[in-house]
Amino acid sequence: MSYYDPLETRSPAEREADLLDRLARQVAHAREHSPYYARHLADFDPASCSTRAALAKLPLTRKRELIDLQKQTPPFGGLNALAGGHARRVFASPGPIYELQGNDTDHWRMARVLHAAGFRRGHLIHNCFSYHFTPGAFIFEGGARKLGCAIFPGGVGQTEQQVQAMVDLRPDGYVGTPSFLRIIVEKAEESGADISSLKKAVVSGEALPGITRHWLAERGIAVRQCYATAEIGAIAYETEMGSGLVVEEELLVEIVRPGSGDPVPDGEVGEVVVTGFNADYPLIRFATGDLSAILPGPSPCGRSNIRLKGWLGRADQTTKVKGMFVHPEQITEIARRFPEIGRMRLVVENPGGQDRMTLHCETGSIGDGLESRLLSSLREVTKLRGELRFSAPGDLPNDGKVIEDCRVY
Amino acid sequence: MSYYDPLETRSPAEREADLLDRLARQVAHAREHSPYYARHLADFDPASCSTRAALAKLPLTRKRELIDLQKQTPPFGGLNALAGGHARRVFASPGPIYELQGNDTDHWRMARVLHAAGFRRGHLIHNCFSYHFTPGAFIFEGGARKLGCAIFPGGVGQTEQQVQAMVDLRPDGYVGTPSFLRIIVEKAEESGADISSLKKAVVSGEALPGITRHWLAERGIAVRQCYATAEIGAIAYETEMGSGLVVEEELLVEIVRPGSGDPVPDGEVGEVVVTGFNADYPLIRFATGDLSAILPGPSPCGRSNIRLKGWLGRADQTTKVKGMFVHPEQITEIARRFPEIGRMRLVVENPGGQDRMTLHCETGSIGDGLESRLLSSLREVTKLRGELRFSAPGDLPNDGKVIEDCRVY
Repeated sequence: MSYYDPLETRSPAEREADLLDRLARQVAHAREHSPYYARHLADFDPASCSTRAALAKLPLTRKRELIDLQKQTPPFGGLNALAGGHARRVFASPGPIYELQGNDTDHWRMARVLHAAGFRRGHLIHNCFSYHFTPGAFIFEGGARKLGCAIFPGGVGQTEQQVQAMVDLRPDGYVGTPSFLRIIVEKAEESGADISSLKKAVVSGEALPGITRHWLAERGIAVRQCYATAEIGAIAYETEMGSGLVVEEELLVEIVRPGSGDPVPDGEVGEVVVTGFNADYPLIRFATGDLSAILPGPSPCGRSNIRLKGWLGRADQTTKVKGMFVHPEQITEIARRFPEIGRMRLVVENPGGQDRMTLHCETGSIGDGLESRLLSSLREVTKLRGELRFSAPGDLPNDGKVIEDCRVY
Repeated sequence: MSYYDPLETRSPAEREADLLDRLARQVAHAREHSPYYARHLADFDPASCSTRAALAKLPLTRKRELIDLQKQTPPFGGLNALAGGHARRVFASPGPIYELQGNDTDHWRMARVLHAAGFRRGHLIHNCFSYHFTPGAFIFEGGARKLGCAIFPGGVGQTEQQVQAMVDLRPDGYVGTPSFLRIIVEKAEESGADISSLKKAVVSGEALPGITRHWLAERGIAVRQCYATAEIGAIAYETEMGSGLVVEEELLVEIVRPGSGDPVPDGEVGEVVVTGFNADYPLIRFATGDLSAILPGPSPCGRSNIRLKGWLGRADQTTKVKGMFVHPEQITEIARRFPEIGRMRLVVENPGGQDRMTLHCETGSIGDGLESRLLSSLREVTKLRGELRFSAPGDLPNDGKVIEDCRVY
């Protein structure tokens, strides 16, 4: 087992102290250099931002708010600390959401991820993420550059030519989506092309079905998953099969209850919230919109950071009931008024074609007037009538859902 | 007028001395580090390679030979001095021909070209060359990086999204093909999109019709052409409209008679042969397959390097006559036997559907037996019978053609 650097095996306490120390400095930096954070964090003293509790009090920046923020303050919503023209590259992801790449070699911190998958200096990587508009391909390019690997920019499509390039250039590994890797390998087998140089892959951008991983492993390709986003870059990465994804070293990751900024207990499913330390594009408590959970215990690979379970769905459960939007934030608002309630979950059904919503609440004891107070809060916050059902603590499913849409059409 | 650096205005003698001094060192470097050049230049003493005459004696490396060279010694034909895995990127151009990018910031020397077109530090460049497989987009990325410009990687296609990105990101300029720029501007006008931030462009990859340049100029976009190839990068670039293309500073450019390695007199059309000084991918007397000519006199922009007339066609005039290949090199072989002949040109016609070839020769006096000696040489070298026609010196067209195919089908 070889590690990228000693950070990966430092003690959790040492890591936590380091990251929280950097948090205080990053809050100060963001307030000073990012117009958005100057406003957004105006009420927070950077010096006091050096504990998990203080972090949990900072306001979220939601991925889905970026489109509006950027419309108000084009093109980057004022989040950037670096002017667009002084960036290395700028991007347009679907939405459109605009992103910026800073001038450091490995802006999205991918060298560690590639290293954990077995890539080393002098390897050639066949890169099948797209280079056009979105940062996908460049996220991996930075890591390859830092690690000293060469890149073949294959991009997307053109399967036959991808196979031909692999035959001639003999890449050591692949980065891209797992489904396209499978398509390439199938095409190579069909035509008898020798792409046996390909021994490893880092995949991202979609789920990796076990059957695909197995199929590729049978053909000598060890596949590792990486969880990354266009804004943040690497968040967590597989170090071995079936042991979850180790969180990258230069990030603070929290799992919060969807619709709130409140961290859930370890092991509970919630929204992934990330704080990074990039100077050019600071993101503090960036709510990714993805659901995951922290896996218990240390990773068998020896890396000491916490691990995520992988992608467990989308956190944004906003829906429409009887034509009215209902947001997870509204359920959070109700929950705040009832600290005696554990988990809360709004279930939406449509028996007989009619929308019906029921607020499920975990509680040990149903105190005086609790039911009527809950129902009127539900009505007040959502402007909709609903029903109520109580459950014992721990009875509601651990799936990160605050609003569950069970309607059948 | 502002220059990228003092090299652009140094005296021609100083430039020549500098480049020829570097030539001797580059020949030594290539012989030592490139397996292909170790063989190809085995008979040449690097120390003696410091004059134009010595340069003209070095063997050519023809672009069209690369495919075969690379098949013999995959993937780079042994031309590279750097192993593929230690390159920054490797590429596959149609053919396929594989190329390699070294680790310097601006491998293809594009910063100077962008600067001449008005790009400056802090500008945002919308890059519409493809990033997939071929080096096109990366050639310009390196120059942007060195100059301190940010890049939006637009790639090819997706016209509406290109327009949207321009509206939101407000790029200062464009690089790509001129035809795609026109398509983008037309789409923007159609939809009333404001892309008025776009004031300049460097175009390459295809001819720039005067009408397109004018159309774009009317819309406030000053377009400059750049002549570059995947292997060499920047060869020459426009500094102002209609004054030809100034040769890049870090290159030795020769114009040779197609099918030979012999430099033609200044002003005569011939094949562009380039010697570069890149350490990772040395190319010595690289015959591009493109026709051009040197323009007389100095550039009005004040840059002191020689100028090319632009792209004047393809130099490879290999054709088939009566089912047999005839190569420009064969005409060169005949010309070598008759130093008294000026220009020589094989014209192929098909009156009545029958192939007929006629060797046109410029000569001041038709000496004893010249006609029969020429005809038997033609027969011996091409294995084909032909006819002969004499012209006065200077009568044959100055278009770089050694074989002219006039057949009508």
